[in-house]
Amino acid sequence: MANITKKVSWSSRADESGAAGEGTPLLNGSEQPRHSRQPSEGGSLCQIGRLSTVDLEEEITSDEESQRGRPKEIPHNEKLLSLKYESLDYDNIENQLFLEEERKMSYMGFRCLEISRWVVCGLIGFLTGLIACFIDIVVEQLAGIKYQVVKENIEKFTEVGGLSISLLLWAVLNSAIVMLGAIIVAFFEPIAAGSGIPQIKCYLNGIKIPRVVRLKTLVVKVGGVICSVVGGLAVGKVKTLISENRTCITFIFEYFRRDTEKRDFVSAGAAAGVSAAFGAPVGGVLFSLEEGASFWNQMLTWRIFFASMISTFTLNFFLSIYHNKPGELSNPGLINFGRFQGDSVAYNLYEIPLFIAMGAIGGLLGALFNVLNYWLTIFRIRYVHRPCLQVMEAMLVAAVTATVSFTMIYFSNDCQPLGPEHTEEYPLQLFCADGEYNSMATAFFNTPERSVRSLFHNQPGTYNPLTLGLFTLTYFFLACWTYGLAVSAGVFIPSLLIGAAWGRLCGILLATITPDGSIWADPGKYALIGAAAQLGGIVRMTLSLTVIMVEATGNVTYGLPIMLVLMTAKIVGDYFVEGLYDIHIKLQSVPFLHWEAPATSHWLTAREVMSSPVTCLNRIEKVGTIVDTLSNTSTNHNGFPVVVKVSGSDEPPKLCGLILRSQLIVLLKHKVFVELARSRLTQRKLQLKDFRDAYPRFPPIQSIHVSQDERECMMDLTEFMNATPYTVPQETSLPRVFKLFRALGLRHLVVVDDENRVVGLVTRKDLARYHLGKHGLEELQLAQT
Amino acid sequence: MANITKKVSWSSRADESGAAGEGTPLLNGSEQPRHSRQPSEGGSLCQIGRLSTVDLEEEITSDEESQRGRPKEIPHNEKLLSLKYESLDYDNIENQLFLEEERKMSYMGFRCLEISRWVVCGLIGFLTGLIACFIDIVVEQLAGIKYQVVKENIEKFTEVGGLSISLLLWAVLNSAIVMLGAIIVAFFEPIAAGSGIPQIKCYLNGIKIPRVVRLKTLVVKVGGVICSVVGGLAVGKVKTLISENRTCITFIFEYFRRDTEKRDFVSAGAAAGVSAAFGAPVGGVLFSLEEGASFWNQMLTWRIFFASMISTFTLNFFLSIYHNKPGELSNPGLINFGRFQGDSVAYNLYEIPLFIAMGAIGGLLGALFNVLNYWLTIFRIRYVHRPCLQVMEAMLVAAVTATVSFTMIYFSNDCQPLGPEHTEEYPLQLFCADGEYNSMATAFFNTPERSVRSLFHNQPGTYNPLTLGLFTLTYFFLACWTYGLAVSAGVFIPSLLIGAAWGRLCGILLATITPDGSIWADPGKYALIGAAAQLGGIVRMTLSLTVIMVEATGNVTYGLPIMLVLMTAKIVGDYFVEGLYDIHIKLQSVPFLHWEAPATSHWLTAREVMSSPVTCLNRIEKVGTIVDTLSNTSTNHNGFPVVVKVSGSDEPPKLCGLILRSQLIVLLKHKVFVELARSRLTQRKLQLKDFRDAYPRFPPIQSIHVSQDERECMMDLTEFMNATPYTVPQETSLPRVFKLFRALGLRHLVVVDDENRVVGLVTRKDLARYHLGKHGLEELQLAQT
Repeated sequence: MANITKKVSWSSRADESGAAGEGTPLLNGSEQPRHSRQPSEGGSLCQIGRLSTVDLEEEITSDEESQRGRPKEIPHNEKLLSLKYESLDYDNIENQLFLEEERKMSYMGFRCLEISRWVVCGLIGFLTGLIACFIDIVVEQLAGIKYQVVKENIEKFTEVGGLSISLLLWAVLNSAIVMLGAIIVAFFEPIAAGSGIPQIKCYLNGIKIPRVVRLKTLVVKVGGVICSVVGGLAVGKVKTLISENRTCITFIFEYFRRDTEKRDFVSAGAAAGVSAAFGAPVGGVLFSLEEGASFWNQMLTWRIFFASMISTFTLNFFLSIYHNKPGELSNPGLINFGRFQGDSVAYNLYEIPLFIAMGAIGGLLGALFNVLNYWLTIFRIRYVHRPCLQVMEAMLVAAVTATVSFTMIYFSNDCQPLGPEHTEEYPLQLFCADGEYNSMATAFFNTPERSVRSLFHNQPGTYNPLTLGLFTLTYFFLACWTYGLAVSAGVFIPSLLIGAAWGRLCGILLATITPDGSIWADPGKYALIGAAAQLGGIVRMTLSLTVIMVEATGNVTYGLPIMLVLMTAKIVGDYFVEGLYDIHIKLQSVPFLHWEAPATSHWLTAREVMSSPVTCLNRIEKVGTIVDTLSNTSTNHNGFPVVVKVSGSDEPPKLCGLILRSQLIVLLKHKVFVELARSRLTQRKLQLKDFRDAYPRFPPIQSIHVSQDERECMMDLTEFMNATPYTVPQETSLPRVFKLFRALGLRHLVVVDDENRVVGLVTRKDLARYHLGKHGLEELQLAQT
Repeated sequence: MANITKKVSWSSRADESGAAGEGTPLLNGSEQPRHSRQPSEGGSLCQIGRLSTVDLEEEITSDEESQRGRPKEIPHNEKLLSLKYESLDYDNIENQLFLEEERKMSYMGFRCLEISRWVVCGLIGFLTGLIACFIDIVVEQLAGIKYQVVKENIEKFTEVGGLSISLLLWAVLNSAIVMLGAIIVAFFEPIAAGSGIPQIKCYLNGIKIPRVVRLKTLVVKVGGVICSVVGGLAVGKVKTLISENRTCITFIFEYFRRDTEKRDFVSAGAAAGVSAAFGAPVGGVLFSLEEGASFWNQMLTWRIFFASMISTFTLNFFLSIYHNKPGELSNPGLINFGRFQGDSVAYNLYEIPLFIAMGAIGGLLGALFNVLNYWLTIFRIRYVHRPCLQVMEAMLVAAVTATVSFTMIYFSNDCQPLGPEHTEEYPLQLFCADGEYNSMATAFFNTPERSVRSLFHNQPGTYNPLTLGLFTLTYFFLACWTYGLAVSAGVFIPSLLIGAAWGRLCGILLATITPDGSIWADPGKYALIGAAAQLGGIVRMTLSLTVIMVEATGNVTYGLPIMLVLMTAKIVGDYFVEGLYDIHIKLQSVPFLHWEAPATSHWLTAREVMSSPVTCLNRIEKVGTIVDTLSNTSTNHNGFPVVVKVSGSDEPPKLCGLILRSQLIVLLKHKVFVELARSRLTQRKLQLKDFRDAYPRFPPIQSIHVSQDERECMMDLTEFMNATPYTVPQETSLPRVFKLFRALGLRHLVVVDDENRVVGLVTRKDLARYHLGKHGLEELQLAQT
């Protein structure tokens, strides 16, 4: 039980850059101060500097001790919200420095900036396309070699007996490749595990997931993907490449060194990734908007669209060269489902209910998948957390996958004639007659993407129902086991494959039970619907997924059926359990903000929600106080309201700004002190550049040495604080606070009383705490895990 | 010159419901009060009730007089901003009544609400589809009859001579039909004129365009569209139906009686309209988002998508019945461009520069079109403003169009063989040999939509270059003349037709100048690119237009070229002049808010931007004061900050809420007074229902009789005011104010000093005033036109 608190890999290492918590005191929620309009009471809520932190430390001691005493016993469940994740600052820090810079800038300057944003997006698209192309070619080459070797081996031993040697060869080959992939992921960059979509979802939601946009992650991810696909796991090669390649570019342009710009570029990267993967530029844009942007900005959307287009274009261009048809740009993206054309695309009104029923099946199967994977993930969090164990599990899965596939192929007697138009690259003859091939092998002995394509487009009669049924069953469990392994791999393509298999099965069954089979002539259509249903049931995306499917199949006719199917799958699936990505996000205790506040939260106001008391700083503050405040590891606040006392009055101080930990650290590092003792100003003039240079890895406070003399100095925060932070009154209802917070991408929202005095601070965690459970509004616990 | 101030028809009648201006005093901008942190000065900015309005009236007298003295002499230009347009309240009025209702509501209640929203969206989609279907069928039938009559007539007279009789018949027929359409539009509902897109753009932007969402407008519009298309004007039948049919539905559900919900449903309606018109559900959603939503809400987007899908589906379903293929749902939308399939869809890398060049041409031609139409519109505003003149102009255009078409056909000798696969429904033989038909007639003697299709898909060689060149030239000017007439008609299809014509011309020319003509085999491809370029050059949409084109042509391959073309066309066109819709919006002096604040506006702060002084009300206010404030026609404020004095202190009062004119009117109407004189509370308990019943046509203040006794009563606003209005400090920069305002869809934003006292009010007009002109930041004048 000692490992119960262990998290799955992509968050298991805390961010080195340190500080967590957005100014949320540990006492959060334990004792909400009584609200009063009288200044005397209201004022006491805001405690200044050192005094406050000392108070806090005293107050929290018991709480903290109890935590330290039994840190291992915090049960790992979804009722927790981790304090370790920071928010991104989507709101510009409009301090004097920033405004001065903006005001100095001419109109041409802004035009240039705009153009360079386009250039960056173009580069992102280009690089994404390039990487996608690289992965595609390498996977194709390596998988080709592997399947060729195994195929020859199997053919050699089919006659003479001793197929177990082939099995062994296959299993060992797979395990070895997967081991390689698992090792680089588990030991070098755990965050590169999985599909990358939950991480990107969180990042776009505004949560700083450590290391998700670093070059190293990208390299590991590309390597990991190649290994897992080639290793024959039930995974897809898509989606994993969507996000990591922009950090390097972003930093070329100094101006873009802030969270706002970075997040925009990550959106563009995510869109470009999806776009390259599916040849779906519009779908990519919608994906990025659906998951990320809480607002809609036309220019930003165009840039994202531009990145998507460039990415698809680059991929097509290089693939066309690779396929010796240079300049033929009408190739689709990385995942080619083939185009549905001609008569097979038509559907009839009476098929709509069938499609909807398939959507319901997809929802049910998806929920089952998610529940199984949820249990598995809990198991993994508890027992399989050491890197070497993770690598071993991955190898085991690879070996089991090979064995099961082999067994299925071995015992299958679904022989199909090897017609002139057959599209399989590695047909296995096995025990079939000459000129025939084993149909089960088409499904298993292939990259998943090719299998999907053959399920969509092969002639009716290519598969017999039993083959499809067995394949669905085994692949379902294999895919479920595979997702969440310490390898870089997505759930997209496996879901599509499962769905396509049972969808085609439905089509075949329908054709047999109806007397006039001609109209059901195309089981490929049902495979497509099944694929959509299964994927929708697992991941629960609707809008972007519809468009992605439409674009990936190159035909808009199926738009309505696919949409209906996805909606049905989502409704049915949501009845049982959340989407797969949401489950994994929840298991990470990430403070994820949904689109709207919980419906029944109108009775909560900012007063109940906010953290209080708040550590405030004076506009001219003693350096020692600042250092102590920042060093206070028990609170780890990241934002501090700045207050000013009306001179000569004994009224409590009023809010005049907000300053971030990172800014204070830069100020301390550059020793921007006013030595009042010598009564002359020696405050160094800092430029915005100094802050940008430090971005994004601000040193921890411990690394900054402040001498005892310097502690006595003062620091003037006027220039550096954001002088106009957004504020709300205490009576503001939670939905209203939520809307403001979400629409503007805030990190800190100051709650003030009617005299403009600070009474509390609302951060992401305070809002994410409230969520709608089965029994109405629930409140999650906050924990420093 | 007396009519210079007259507006074009869709805004020429002021909204009967009266009050305009969002609390913007007439003195706006003339004298900004000096800012100070001292309470004595700051407090004086907020004047209470009657006192303030009297002051104001006195102050403005001279200003007003000068306006009254020479109202005719205000030159009509784009440097004006009209005060007559109101804003929508996208922000919920969170007063006590509202919160009580929300708090009483159970989780199931919210679910039901959500479900009914879906139902409404479904109904919107269904009705939109139905109306689209109705228009399509009626247009097809009537146009069929007309063309048949004219064709027979022409054939009769071709042999015997006397074709001038045919011309006369054609011209008279057209004029008569157009007259009918123009009469209903000009006399009954001027707002139904034009394409409807500028109006919807404004509405979605948050501006209350009077009567744009009423049933009468819808009926007139449908009639008008049918008449103009059948009348043979250079117009398209799309886009005009996009928005009007939801008011009636919305009001079934009482809860939805607020601007927030209404605007959401209008978004859905707009999307459904585009979706039905082009068979482009995704394009419809993107259109609605690109033009409207300033934020992105997942659930809302899904609902919009749902409405789009249902609309396309309904249209397809009923059209399939009409075409005797019931249940065949794979038909595309109303505008069927035909599908690009097979080999013709491929394009090569070296064609990309050609496409981009065509985009540039499209941008140039589009800019020319817009400039011409701009001058024409100015001319119309000055001289053609009386309904009968408008009808006459429309008839003139119809007659000229018929004459020009006839002349072109008459003098054309482009005879083409009447092959078995010809698709023209009304081939005109004229002077061609038997078995041939006049190719020029295909383009002119047809509904524009059919002409586009034939330009896209007819075999190479169907048109000769001279025909296309002449056609482009004449149609360009005809379409330019037609747009802005007092008929319901859009610019979409004519633009596409012009573009398709010169695009096909480009394709043919390219095929002739290159030695190996085989790769240029398909001029239809170039027609498509040309159509996109021309349309992009005129309307300057990019993202949604790309998707619409892709969906309308049923092929995603052209995504990248179309996008590049649209972007080029936009960049080139923007260099010269704005998009057509933006020009028309500007000519209306509508306070349209763009996506972002002007780039160089960082030096402006809320203090400079805000209107001040502000008319404030006390929390418990004298009825007489309220009546006087509301009756003050010179200010016509719509929102009033509510302030409260700290009892027993002489400090200036502090902000405690915000109340709207419409709320005050309902309160007055229901006589919610506290008769302090009798020292008992007789304040009637009002329900939220009372406010909803009054929505959206609140009576003007003049219609409410308040006796002298009642004037002495007090009114307690506590329950009804929004107790937590959004506020900003005075130092907030314009971009920050803009962002907050736009992201939350605000109508009033209160500016407070650091003691929480009201110093100003920012409304839509204050923000829309600043815009980026050729010479940097410009400030528009506000005028009560």
